[in-house]
Amino acid sequence: MAVFNKIALIGVGLIGSSIARVARERAIANTIAISSRSQQTLDEARTLDLGDEYNTDAAQIVKDADLVILCTPVGVVGNITSIIADHLKPGSIISDVGSVKVSVIQQMLPHIPDGVNFVPAHPVAGTEKSGPKHGFATLFDNRWCILTPTPKAEESAIEALGDFWQACGSSIEIMDAEHHDKVLAITSHLPQLIAYNIVGTADDLEAVTNSEVIKYSAGGFRDSTRLAASDPTMWRDVCLHNKEAILEMLARFSEDLSAMQRAVRWADGDTLFDMFTRTRKIRRDIIDAGQEIDAPNFGRDD
Amino acid sequence: MAVFNKIALIGVGLIGSSIARVARERAIANTIAISSRSQQTLDEARTLDLGDEYNTDAAQIVKDADLVILCTPVGVVGNITSIIADHLKPGSIISDVGSVKVSVIQQMLPHIPDGVNFVPAHPVAGTEKSGPKHGFATLFDNRWCILTPTPKAEESAIEALGDFWQACGSSIEIMDAEHHDKVLAITSHLPQLIAYNIVGTADDLEAVTNSEVIKYSAGGFRDSTRLAASDPTMWRDVCLHNKEAILEMLARFSEDLSAMQRAVRWADGDTLFDMFTRTRKIRRDIIDAGQEIDAPNFGRDD
Repeated sequence: MAVFNKIALIGVGLIGSSIARVARERAIANTIAISSRSQQTLDEARTLDLGDEYNTDAAQIVKDADLVILCTPVGVVGNITSIIADHLKPGSIISDVGSVKVSVIQQMLPHIPDGVNFVPAHPVAGTEKSGPKHGFATLFDNRWCILTPTPKAEESAIEALGDFWQACGSSIEIMDAEHHDKVLAITSHLPQLIAYNIVGTADDLEAVTNSEVIKYSAGGFRDSTRLAASDPTMWRDVCLHNKEAILEMLARFSEDLSAMQRAVRWADGDTLFDMFTRTRKIRRDIIDAGQEIDAPNFGRDD
Repeated sequence: MAVFNKIALIGVGLIGSSIARVARERAIANTIAISSRSQQTLDEARTLDLGDEYNTDAAQIVKDADLVILCTPVGVVGNITSIIADHLKPGSIISDVGSVKVSVIQQMLPHIPDGVNFVPAHPVAGTEKSGPKHGFATLFDNRWCILTPTPKAEESAIEALGDFWQACGSSIEIMDAEHHDKVLAITSHLPQLIAYNIVGTADDLEAVTNSEVIKYSAGGFRDSTRLAASDPTMWRDVCLHNKEAILEMLARFSEDLSAMQRAVRWADGDTLFDMFTRTRKIRRDIIDAGQEIDAPNFGRDD
């Protein structure tokens, strides 16, 4: 049985198109409506047959939707909410998929009409690919989806959204938005910035050519390039909207890196050995938790 | 036809055991002799049937070997060479697989007897797994092997070692040791240290629990944990033996990270967008060069 009769997806990139696919494949919604402000993206979604309705005007597709999910970069969710607010169906649920939550709530909450349930969500899943064609139905399987409910949400609405994401394959966790933003700053935003930075540093070297960087990337560098190939608009917005938590994690990272650098400079082998030993356990735990593959090199050399 | 009649591998971890496997599988050597100072590791190699001769005394297996390869952490190659030097066969080749080359040459060259060819090598390949059982015969396929020949090497010996590595599946590049160490500092050593550091920073957080770090690692963090699970002894030695180049790369990385941090603090979206855009091309180039898989998430979610 469908969890919702009609869902409306505003934005149809990697996440939006994956929701559309899994919702249809597993019959989680009877009708899937898709909006994108870009006619080209919308045409692409139509060619891929991702939905049942298509409209560049988001207000048109939310009217009779039971669940509206904003699947855009987090910088535009306030503006979109202000545009669609008057068209939301009483008793419906509005949600999002953004990687930051405090700012999303600040942007959206003032526009939410009484009688509409606002339940922000963050499916912690993704790939480095962007756009409708790169979504896939199993993206959320075995991943976590974090809900950060607002006062403008009935308990039943929170449960219904949880049911929806469970039907999409995910496990549900509920936490407050501030804590979410700190957790994601370390598990996602910092690794992302570090990846961008290391690739940028390599790109700038004068003494080593780019072709050398590419040829010998199997020495470890290529790992960083995956995250560094992610959507720049999405990540710019994350940085702008989770500034404080990101700055804290960057500061901690830099302090730790200075300590490591000092150990290298002073040839302090024991300290380096200890630093390089304790990190093994975390990967083991991530593999045991089913969040990572155990095959060497992520299995890519198989 | 075998490239060498007998090869002797001193050290039988991931790289040594992979050489043993590919050499036998492709009949690159008629006889494979293996030494490890650890009886347990040697027994493991024997159980895996990796070679034809086993001896904890390296001097015993090099006597009639045409090619001797040191496959140990780079911190011990000088000592090992001093022990085996008098037993090396005239006209034979001695090589290594270390990720640093200047220090390896400094450590080994003084011990190399006249009439023995010393050709340091570095197969740029590996996984995060350690030990004899994790080696595999295809590890070097489609990877680069860098030779940094010394004055103590006939041209024919350099060619023969190149033939050997080509038979193992690799392409050959020849460069001077100083340049090698700079190239690897950026393509391998820096990414490795950054991975260790980011995992260490996450492990230390008080506000976010380790179980949260593990649960939500699919947001990007899990990528870093692969390199951070690598052999600590090997990487301690790399840091101690490529200090100057690593310190230079760390300094550059930190400068660049400060610039990125400043852009976050000042909410400079345009600068962040530019930083996040130029890095996409490098991954594309690495994929086009056949050094990386194009599947999303390294293909691990397939």
